[in-house]
Amino acid sequence: MEVINRYVTVETQINGEPKESNFEIKSTPLVLSAEPGSNDVVLKNLYVSIDPYQINRLKAYTLTQKTSGYATAITPGQATCWLFYFYFYSVIDAYGVAKVVASENPEFEKDDLVVGMITWGEYSVLKGQYMLRKLDPMGFPLSYHVGIFAFSGLTAYAGFFEVCKPKKGEKVFVSAASGSVGHLVGQYAKQFGCYVVGCAGSKEKVALLKDKLGFDDAFNYKDEPDLKSALEKYFPEGIDIYFDNVGAEMLEAAVSNMNTFGRIAACGVISEYTDSGKRAAPNMLEIVYKRITIRGFLTADFMNLYPDFLSATVDHLRTGTLHTLEDISTGLESIPQAFVGLFHGGNVGKKIVKLADE
Amino acid sequence: MEVINRYVTVETQINGEPKESNFEIKSTPLVLSAEPGSNDVVLKNLYVSIDPYQINRLKAYTLTQKTSGYATAITPGQATCWLFYFYFYSVIDAYGVAKVVASENPEFEKDDLVVGMITWGEYSVLKGQYMLRKLDPMGFPLSYHVGIFAFSGLTAYAGFFEVCKPKKGEKVFVSAASGSVGHLVGQYAKQFGCYVVGCAGSKEKVALLKDKLGFDDAFNYKDEPDLKSALEKYFPEGIDIYFDNVGAEMLEAAVSNMNTFGRIAACGVISEYTDSGKRAAPNMLEIVYKRITIRGFLTADFMNLYPDFLSATVDHLRTGTLHTLEDISTGLESIPQAFVGLFHGGNVGKKIVKLADE
Repeated sequence: MEVINRYVTVETQINGEPKESNFEIKSTPLVLSAEPGSNDVVLKNLYVSIDPYQINRLKAYTLTQKTSGYATAITPGQATCWLFYFYFYSVIDAYGVAKVVASENPEFEKDDLVVGMITWGEYSVLKGQYMLRKLDPMGFPLSYHVGIFAFSGLTAYAGFFEVCKPKKGEKVFVSAASGSVGHLVGQYAKQFGCYVVGCAGSKEKVALLKDKLGFDDAFNYKDEPDLKSALEKYFPEGIDIYFDNVGAEMLEAAVSNMNTFGRIAACGVISEYTDSGKRAAPNMLEIVYKRITIRGFLTADFMNLYPDFLSATVDHLRTGTLHTLEDISTGLESIPQAFVGLFHGGNVGKKIVKLADE
Repeated sequence: MEVINRYVTVETQINGEPKESNFEIKSTPLVLSAEPGSNDVVLKNLYVSIDPYQINRLKAYTLTQKTSGYATAITPGQATCWLFYFYFYSVIDAYGVAKVVASENPEFEKDDLVVGMITWGEYSVLKGQYMLRKLDPMGFPLSYHVGIFAFSGLTAYAGFFEVCKPKKGEKVFVSAASGSVGHLVGQYAKQFGCYVVGCAGSKEKVALLKDKLGFDDAFNYKDEPDLKSALEKYFPEGIDIYFDNVGAEMLEAAVSNMNTFGRIAACGVISEYTDSGKRAAPNMLEIVYKRITIRGFLTADFMNLYPDFLSATVDHLRTGTLHTLEDISTGLESIPQAFVGLFHGGNVGKKIVKLADE
């Protein structure tokens, strides 16, 4: 059987803010069969993840050579993939849930649900080495397996517990607190017994953090002309842990308000992703005197925590002590807008695009 | 017996670079006896330490409230002391070696050699709570007990082994490498089995690092128009550990050259001490992707390592596998110049002022 596969591609390297016009939707005929004797798998994609970090693979700015493969650039018009090679050019790989259409890999059968690195397309053809596993939905929506049970959830869990090393009663500040990771960090921190304040970019998001997610307090950073003073107001006793998703001025303001032996988990720097000239210049004198630790981390280094994370998170969800925020658009053509929106606070919680019904 | 005690005082708060004119030498009559029934000790000072961090207590710029007492400002014309109270106004406390002249503290007797927080003066009168202990010179010069056996040595040892957590074969970069701490860090790192490159501010210092102290390589940062490229040249395989004594551009350049899981010990930021507007703006995106840790530390937190540090350091000195660099001036009147010189690379190794013969 042959179908027309539509997929998102990047037509120009992205400099600065991504625009919808950077993306194009292309169509290619695709035979829904795997090459006999190969290890290939053909998937019908159901849900794909839309993540800010993907900008670092799409933009012209590249990190220094020593950076590791996580930000390897995807060059327009070339075979692009990081973990595996695709059948066609310029597809963009992304985490997602799919259904097996054809498989020459003995681990997967037709109609299996799978989760792993697929593509921003209606179908994915995975060849060579790829990262995929069979999915047991455990009674949860499939979208949960793209968000809370995937990198967003593990990032929040590992970042908070392993990188921040919290103690009960400590004061925790989370930026981008209604984002895919931030809203979970705040809830894990509350459950653990910390005092938690989050910041977000709208009145509605702030209300959500306080009323639905149980943050002790929250504020709209756009209403605060002076972030350092704002943090002084929300943390009269100082900040012990800052879970940083944004970088730049917020990081500087947090350093000024940190307590001695404060810890900063550098999870993301969304404010710097689209502007390589924008930098945080934290006061190093305070970092020395207050013995502050700033630690960058990637979730891929904490896969060993996945079983603990999953069991704790499933329990919390079943008992209603954890809420996940999802922001789901529908249809392949919504991907460019969904992605661009991430850099303007367009999403509330985990941004996911639904491509097809199960 | 009454003497004239001469001491250094700060007459104006210091903004920016310290100048000799910020200091004044005053004289006060002093009776060389301790008040009966008190805990007072009167000392004749022999050697005092001259340290860059003292600027942070002398300058108008003060850190945020949450900083801890280590940078509590000394205000001109007021009783000033941090650990204890002095008999007179505006003396400046400093680490040093002294001889007991009179004591009402049962722990100390006349003619005992002591080490601890004394003053930039010819005599010190310590009242209330003070930090002092009897000194066993162990056959080493008294000056060693102000430098290598005191904070400089422990800072290098604890900073390198506890904060940097080195592995054999790792690549180590040390800035201000001929300074009081840096020259010891480099030698501990070499002994441990690391590859070590240091930077300093003159040809003579660079030669000293390579020829006398056994650094694998060294360079004069003043000869390098582009620090990032310079570090690329000296570390073609990247930097695993950066022992940062300077902050600012050097920290940025080091971050760009760090390997994954690199560690940065933020020990001091001499380039920022005298210019609160000067800041490092490291690339946070590299900190995240390369999982770099930046950790500020103070030696006071590692006093528990003192016995291990002392025994290892004494052994190395006795077997000739460790060299200490000392830069000793003589006489109270040399203190202002010695201090000001620290901020212009005037010293080679630990800066000490000798005030009197034993």
